[in-house]
Amino acid sequence: MQALIFDTRLSFRKDYPDPKPGPGEALIRVTLAGICATDLEIVRGYMVYRGIPGHEFVGIVEESPDREWIGRRVVGEINAACGRCPTCQRGRPTHCPHRTVLGIEGRDGVFAEYLTLPVANLHAVPENVPDEEAVFAEPLAAAFRIPEQVVIGPESQVYVLGDGRLGLLVAQVLHATGCRLTLIGKHREKLALAGQRGIRTLSVAEMPVDPADIVVDCTGSPAGLQQAISLTRPLGTLVLKTTCADPFSFNPSPLVIHEITVVGSRCGPFPVALEALRTGTVRVTPMIHEIFPLSDGIRAFETAGTPGVLKVLLKP
Amino acid sequence: MQALIFDTRLSFRKDYPDPKPGPGEALIRVTLAGICATDLEIVRGYMVYRGIPGHEFVGIVEESPDREWIGRRVVGEINAACGRCPTCQRGRPTHCPHRTVLGIEGRDGVFAEYLTLPVANLHAVPENVPDEEAVFAEPLAAAFRIPEQVVIGPESQVYVLGDGRLGLLVAQVLHATGCRLTLIGKHREKLALAGQRGIRTLSVAEMPVDPADIVVDCTGSPAGLQQAISLTRPLGTLVLKTTCADPFSFNPSPLVIHEITVVGSRCGPFPVALEALRTGTVRVTPMIHEIFPLSDGIRAFETAGTPGVLKVLLKP
Repeated sequence: MQALIFDTRLSFRKDYPDPKPGPGEALIRVTLAGICATDLEIVRGYMVYRGIPGHEFVGIVEESPDREWIGRRVVGEINAACGRCPTCQRGRPTHCPHRTVLGIEGRDGVFAEYLTLPVANLHAVPENVPDEEAVFAEPLAAAFRIPEQVVIGPESQVYVLGDGRLGLLVAQVLHATGCRLTLIGKHREKLALAGQRGIRTLSVAEMPVDPADIVVDCTGSPAGLQQAISLTRPLGTLVLKTTCADPFSFNPSPLVIHEITVVGSRCGPFPVALEALRTGTVRVTPMIHEIFPLSDGIRAFETAGTPGVLKVLLKP
Repeated sequence: MQALIFDTRLSFRKDYPDPKPGPGEALIRVTLAGICATDLEIVRGYMVYRGIPGHEFVGIVEESPDREWIGRRVVGEINAACGRCPTCQRGRPTHCPHRTVLGIEGRDGVFAEYLTLPVANLHAVPENVPDEEAVFAEPLAAAFRIPEQVVIGPESQVYVLGDGRLGLLVAQVLHATGCRLTLIGKHREKLALAGQRGIRTLSVAEMPVDPADIVVDCTGSPAGLQQAISLTRPLGTLVLKTTCADPFSFNPSPLVIHEITVVGSRCGPFPVALEALRTGTVRVTPMIHEIFPLSDGIRAFETAGTPGVLKVLLKP
């Protein structure tokens, strides 16, 4: 099959072996895939992963031990858990220490014609949600993880810091809670996308502002984290959504002095994300920058890594 | 009066002017005071504070606008709040942005014959609690802050990291919750103090161990924080009790990947601490290394700063 492979560099291959589903796994034909920040870090060599990158996808099930799934259009959770360890038994499969992670750790990803994934990870896509929206299910689910972890009420003053792909999804999700929300970013045209959804926006140039009850750091940068801490009020909550490849200079003392709670936040609920796409409470298609054929994947990665570019998709 | 003064260096003065209580403030004659890590940082020049250091004390009220307090033996909360700003009105006086902090920020401290403090900050010491125990009320209250912030049940596996002054207090406080507790430290004789109280202890040399549900970092060191993170299980809670003077190299990515919650924790409830001293559920006197006269304060600070030394007290 056709596939993008990262070894020491990213390359496009026409003759990569088709994947073979393991026990309990489905074979899925990819119809659309999305490039995210983690993929960019992988191909920059910042992570240890080698293989087919990519974990945001929508596709059609071609083989499955449970025949009900065959022919269905699906998205899929990226953590393939063992299902047997104490962590899995306690209902925390996304933290299974034995897990593989689609296109990130120990499991070939989605920038290919086919992928395999446990049937337990699949979610059927509602009919009225086109591929161009369904491909956002994974990052949108990650945004919906936040209200699972932090109580956000109508009185909560919330800042989302960073107007990139994830920041725009998080802002829309939190906007729906009715909280007093401001998206803070650097790019006028990205902030405008949020503004069209009725979200209050602020350019970082207009800072400083009063600290908020809850701050969500979607910047993916060390400077962003320090800024996020300074924007969180005493006894407030700081949600970390992004990771940095390298250590950086940091002093956690303000967390102690101001008794700030920091909540690390990763993967979230797919059913909630799909429902939001079905009902249109979150709009994702304005974030699509360009759709490339898989064979043009190298150029797609270059485009996705350009500052200011939002979502780049790959079509096998 | 006699006092220790920190300007660019620590000095003992016999002729420092007596403090004058402001509106709503009491004049307190210090009978015993304790040196803590923050005081050591101040005299090392790591903080901006200039004046009389010290914030752990017990003393006798000599003047008070509310005459009921006169002659009573008291300890006192260290944050002197404005009482009028939105933060105070919301019941968070320890985070008042206009506050002064006894011996730490904008207010002369307790390493002197006299101090002043708002009457609202005072707590009467129970009769059966001697000065040598009452002087621990402030750090003990800080330890009791943790169960106010984090739900700790009998099933919780908890590590307290660091066997210094604060670590030993925190371990005793959390031990009383009935949780599955281990104090992890470097010093055999300090760990033995906790062992005498029935607390399970572990030398860092015996690491690594399985990650715990809740980890309390009382190390005050960058290496300790990294270790504390690695000892916290996925979806677990890391409580930060100590601050570091300087920034250090750090990568917060594990907090996101393992969805760890970090809780900054500072000052706590004095009434709870005094009750624990009254009933003897926490024992503090074995932690006293030596009591120096105030006039010997320079040497007392040298002793307090020696590795392995627990609590050093000053008697005016």
